[in-house]
Amino acid sequence: MNSGIRTIGVLTSGGDCAGLNAVIRAVTYSAIQTYGWKVYGIMDGSMGLIQRPLQFRELTMGTFGGNYLREGGTFLGTTNKGDPFNFPMPDGTIKDRSEEFAEGCRMLGLDALVVIGGDGSMRILSRLCERAGIGMVGVPKTIDNDVHGTDYAVGFATSINVVTEALDRLQPTAASHHRVMILEVMGRDAGHIAINSGIAGGADVILVPEVPYSLDGVARKIRTVLAQGRSHALVVVAEGVKTESGEPFMISYSGGQQRYGGIGNYLTEKIAQMTGAETRVTILGHVQRGGIPSTRDRLLASAFGVKAVDLVAQKQFGTMVGWQGRSVVAVPLEKVCIGPRSLDPCGTMVGTARGLGIYVGEEICPIEDPAATI
Amino acid sequence: MNSGIRTIGVLTSGGDCAGLNAVIRAVTYSAIQTYGWKVYGIMDGSMGLIQRPLQFRELTMGTFGGNYLREGGTFLGTTNKGDPFNFPMPDGTIKDRSEEFAEGCRMLGLDALVVIGGDGSMRILSRLCERAGIGMVGVPKTIDNDVHGTDYAVGFATSINVVTEALDRLQPTAASHHRVMILEVMGRDAGHIAINSGIAGGADVILVPEVPYSLDGVARKIRTVLAQGRSHALVVVAEGVKTESGEPFMISYSGGQQRYGGIGNYLTEKIAQMTGAETRVTILGHVQRGGIPSTRDRLLASAFGVKAVDLVAQKQFGTMVGWQGRSVVAVPLEKVCIGPRSLDPCGTMVGTARGLGIYVGEEICPIEDPAATI
Amino acid sequence: MNSGIRTIGVLTSGGDCAGLNAVIRAVTYSAIQTYGWKVYGIMDGSMGLIQRPLQFRELTMGTFGGNYLREGGTFLGTTNKGDPFNFPMPDGTIKDRSEEFAEGCRMLGLDALVVIGGDGSMRILSRLCERAGIGMVGVPKTIDNDVHGTDYAVGFATSINVVTEALDRLQPTAASHHRVMILEVMGRDAGHIAINSGIAGGADVILVPEVPYSLDGVARKIRTVLAQGRSHALVVVAEGVKTESGEPFMISYSGGQQRYGGIGNYLTEKIAQMTGAETRVTILGHVQRGGIPSTRDRLLASAFGVKAVDLVAQKQFGTMVGWQGRSVVAVPLEKVCIGPRSLDPCGTMVGTARGLGIYVGEEICPIEDPAATI
Amino acid sequence: MNSGIRTIGVLTSGGDCAGLNAVIRAVTYSAIQTYGWKVYGIMDGSMGLIQRPLQFRELTMGTFGGNYLREGGTFLGTTNKGDPFNFPMPDGTIKDRSEEFAEGCRMLGLDALVVIGGDGSMRILSRLCERAGIGMVGVPKTIDNDVHGTDYAVGFATSINVVTEALDRLQPTAASHHRVMILEVMGRDAGHIAINSGIAGGADVILVPEVPYSLDGVARKIRTVLAQGRSHALVVVAEGVKTESGEPFMISYSGGQQRYGGIGNYLTEKIAQMTGAETRVTILGHVQRGGIPSTRDRLLASAFGVKAVDLVAQKQFGTMVGWQGRSVVAVPLEKVCIGPRSLDPCGTMVGTARGLGIYVGEEICPIEDPAATI
Repeated sequence: MNSGIRTIGVLTSGGDCAGLNAVIRAVTYSAIQTYGWKVYGIMDGSMGLIQRPLQFRELTMGTFGGNYLREGGTFLGTTNKGDPFNFPMPDGTIKDRSEEFAEGCRMLGLDALVVIGGDGSMRILSRLCERAGIGMVGVPKTIDNDVHGTDYAVGFATSINVVTEALDRLQPTAASHHRVMILEVMGRDAGHIAINSGIAGGADVILVPEVPYSLDGVARKIRTVLAQGRSHALVVVAEGVKTESGEPFMISYSGGQQRYGGIGNYLTEKIAQMTGAETRVTILGHVQRGGIPSTRDRLLASAFGVKAVDLVAQKQFGTMVGWQGRSVVAVPLEKVCIGPRSLDPCGTMVGTARGLGIYVGEEICPIEDPAATI
Repeated sequence: MNSGIRTIGVLTSGGDCAGLNAVIRAVTYSAIQTYGWKVYGIMDGSMGLIQRPLQFRELTMGTFGGNYLREGGTFLGTTNKGDPFNFPMPDGTIKDRSEEFAEGCRMLGLDALVVIGGDGSMRILSRLCERAGIGMVGVPKTIDNDVHGTDYAVGFATSINVVTEALDRLQPTAASHHRVMILEVMGRDAGHIAINSGIAGGADVILVPEVPYSLDGVARKIRTVLAQGRSHALVVVAEGVKTESGEPFMISYSGGQQRYGGIGNYLTEKIAQMTGAETRVTILGHVQRGGIPSTRDRLLASAFGVKAVDLVAQKQFGTMVGWQGRSVVAVPLEKVCIGPRSLDPCGTMVGTARGLGIYVGEEICPIEDPAATI
Repeated sequence: MNSGIRTIGVLTSGGDCAGLNAVIRAVTYSAIQTYGWKVYGIMDGSMGLIQRPLQFRELTMGTFGGNYLREGGTFLGTTNKGDPFNFPMPDGTIKDRSEEFAEGCRMLGLDALVVIGGDGSMRILSRLCERAGIGMVGVPKTIDNDVHGTDYAVGFATSINVVTEALDRLQPTAASHHRVMILEVMGRDAGHIAINSGIAGGADVILVPEVPYSLDGVARKIRTVLAQGRSHALVVVAEGVKTESGEPFMISYSGGQQRYGGIGNYLTEKIAQMTGAETRVTILGHVQRGGIPSTRDRLLASAFGVKAVDLVAQKQFGTMVGWQGRSVVAVPLEKVCIGPRSLDPCGTMVGTARGLGIYVGEEICPIEDPAATI
Repeated sequence: MNSGIRTIGVLTSGGDCAGLNAVIRAVTYSAIQTYGWKVYGIMDGSMGLIQRPLQFRELTMGTFGGNYLREGGTFLGTTNKGDPFNFPMPDGTIKDRSEEFAEGCRMLGLDALVVIGGDGSMRILSRLCERAGIGMVGVPKTIDNDVHGTDYAVGFATSINVVTEALDRLQPTAASHHRVMILEVMGRDAGHIAINSGIAGGADVILVPEVPYSLDGVARKIRTVLAQGRSHALVVVAEGVKTESGEPFMISYSGGQQRYGGIGNYLTEKIAQMTGAETRVTILGHVQRGGIPSTRDRLLASAFGVKAVDLVAQKQFGTMVGWQGRSVVAVPLEKVCIGPRSLDPCGTMVGTARGLGIYVGEEICPIEDPAATI
């Protein structure tokens, strides 16, 4: 199969997560062993091609010791410095740096680029690659699992493991002290982490941005649990959930840092007031980004990396690899880059939670089919 | 919704695995909270209904403390004493005990039975329930993941976590001592555990029952790895793999116990002879059955338990719940009970392994589409 | 050996941690099997003996399934309602409830009480037992490891595992994003958790209440790390650390809840300002209380429980069991209840940290012997 | 402090375990940052100095990324090719290669060598260093924890974690199937792994080489457990345990590999015969060598590495670092190299096991003081 491809680049873009190194490894192993290509790892997302000197390293079979597969984060680095088409320069001006990117691709002789990122990154990189005249194939990664076109994105499985483990640790202390523990987890727009880890970790209440809730509903569930003789309860809430009346929590900036966390404290106070229970809040933070990738994230990463290289070889550009059912598939980017995929409030996971008696906010679905799709 | 159902039973049948307690909990929670039914847990598979006195316990919201969700195995017990239609009695005779089963169902007033088991168990229990004149809904469980009609069975995810972790432990000792480590894993007929954990754990060679191999192929891969400068290698092999010439390993019985394990030792000797490498074998054994269920197995178990109860309420009997894509679905038992689902030698997982350069036996697929389905 | 002992009680007091159930199990197993005593588990610390009706359960060999050993927290419950000698009543008055406690002991016919608690709990319970005219033996537990007379208290080992694991998760995200991650951990007065997990987790800076620090010292270390080519750093700080100038952080009460957490945010801002690095804070919270007890905590708990029962049999009351070197020993309570044991700023752990180049605050020890005792 | 030391070597010798990389890192960090020395890592134990060309690499602050601390095994490699004073050459002859070693030390300009090994390795390396005219300091490592002069050797803590986790996995499957599970663990001469993991993992029977046992005693305990209503039991046995009558199991060699494992199968058959219980054996094998080092092994490794460098600086040669109580100390090699440290059959751990009702073989201790030292 002579695809004309000789040299490819691979980069990671956006927030880090578990399994990125496993994707890079799979891309490299397959590109070299199956196709005989040269592979460049681009440092710090698109910045490695924009900066001068170029920031990159050639990836070979020898690059990867026995352990890259098992390590969290991305050894290529990743940054969130901004959209290269509208790049905020240190002097405060906005600059289009897409030509620098294109020139960088030419300097390295790239024929194609494998972009490991979320839907936002893939959209921008797709335009940059177009500008550079090279093909692009995307690999979805995000702990939020909110990318269209794939059942799972790399990083999600490890993230919900971390949150579930936190609930496994909070449950005994809740039980010992007869407390209601509130756990605030990541998820600014989507409740996938909250609903999955909440079910797996035995939560009694799970609040997500996609489903409206009432404090009365929350308090009623807590009271029911306590009345049934269990003296403790667990509440999981996504950071993006608003007040009962729909007001977002203040977002303060400090040291350049966006702060969330209001909802956890809000619920902790409200539940104490409404139920008389002793409450405590935990805001899990950055540990949710992962560390050692789970078995599943390594599998997904490996399948994605191999498939992405196959797509490059077949010149199926403008696509993202995805996992559907038991197979890895190719999905056109235009079906992916349509904004984040929300949790279906009438889907399998919310339906499962309701079936277990978990309070997941007000019922807003037609009754007929409580559990159909995620 | 008046289904006429008032009382259901739930039992676990066949080999234990992680997540069974989570299914039982979900069945109970949903049956009681959503439908107001009475739930009986049947002890030791079908034996609890066959023995006199009946072996069972009523399951209530109070049965499940904070931790059943998190515990391995099945607190109802499970046995492999034999097919009730052809039951081997202590005196050596064979007896049809199906009427005892049916009578047991009547004594408890069961309207339906939720059976958590593999495809063999579901087939037999389906006939027993027919005999008893009650409906049955199945929930697939098996560490081997070889049940048709579902992407995943309960227990598989935890099992491949255990094996992958074992590879994470073997890799450093292999590297430190410049050894080839051979890991023999469960899988008498199917290579799902081997291929999934092998990819996730960074194996160089993965042998499965579904794909023929040559010792030359194995040795060539090992030599290539060593020649590339990595002084160690990892081999994963399913217990059901035969000799190069296709002879099965002796199955000896000792203390009533079936013994496998021949292939691991066989490869250990052969690889040492053919490559000169220092080799060591590990036969992982019963730890693969699990322990604490993984996040994913708890999710699957919870969704399955809720859906099974919904199917009972809808009188969709003769079905199994399954996971397909992002949804829990109902599958007719006749599409499930057609023998074990093998690993597709031309599917995504084998294709991924080949793409990574792993030796997975001889190439037996049409070239055009190396990666399509699992 | 006829000790005259027939009936003992066992209770857990103060904050929960991992390994408490394992102590209760060991006490029960040994009291019943070795000595043939009756054992009562007292609910919710001393409250189970103060409240009417009495809150307790008899503990037998059958109480403990296969899993209590493995579960976090305490199934007997624990509370912090206040000192029974000066008990804050709901009506706002203070009441001496020691006689109710003594009467409770008499009602159960207790000959002795095994108290699993911190040094404060043991001191108070010792006086209560004196009042009741029964013997007491203490078992030290606290995640802070600040009890005199024992190398380790139950719960500490699990707690530093949790924190170290958090650092294992934060390191890859710090590296991927070129950030300085600040982790605030438990420790109001003592830095044992911070120093142990900080060393084990590869921290570059560890701040503890026992050693004064300067922001200049912190910033200098961060700059050195960045200058050496590592683009990220990890900082661990105990919640009890004050501002550089020694001011404690505001403690606000909300819903009856004491809040710490100021130091983490303080450092995050200061380090960003002084080094220009991107910084992020994580406040680990209640997950540090544990969950599944570590191997070491189970061992400690088992040895302590058995020894405590032996001490009761030998009527060595007014003692605490302790671990010293390789042995479990008896320590007089008067040597234990002398306030918390601080981290020795000139001991082995701080010395080890300095030897590794970690910034642990200003050097305040004589130079001669940098590493002698913990 | 002018010690005259300028260049040191560090090597790992004997079987690998978890925490070796953490020692190497601590030695390097301290030697460079505290003393300004040059550090050479010697490959494959003493072989790196014996072979020509020399096998070594200079270790710098940049050698260690964020993860070496967290990785199992030794990146320097280790071998068991034989005693350099009596080295088995490929041609079958025996050769004294000590002068080659000494010459290697001179070629690298080593002033001292830090040897990370067991007591056997330290003894031989001590003589080799004497021959080379350089100082040696030892760091104890062995999963067996059988080195005199230290409470713990590097690697032991991780190893017993692995075995305890295996018991956590075997318990639910034993309970689900009403089986007796036999787990054979490492320990040819010493029962430290078996007794520690057996207690932590809830075993009912623990057999170690240091205590004689009877099959009757084993069977009696199993029957008692079953009679008490628990339908399963766990048995842990060290590989070095002999038959009831004291005969060692055959040691067969296959592919250059020493095989143990007889005792596990022996007990499995005998217990089935004597109790009628269904039994299963698991032989854990090489996974016991570790993988990711536990928090405790990282702490021990860090303290040992720093102290070893301090001892070199103080020219306290012929010593080993050790952990005693809460401190790291220096121990003269002559007190260490006196053969393996056995488990004290009358010490704390065996006493704890007996107190819990575990069968640990026949009682061979004076009754007075059942629990004094490990």
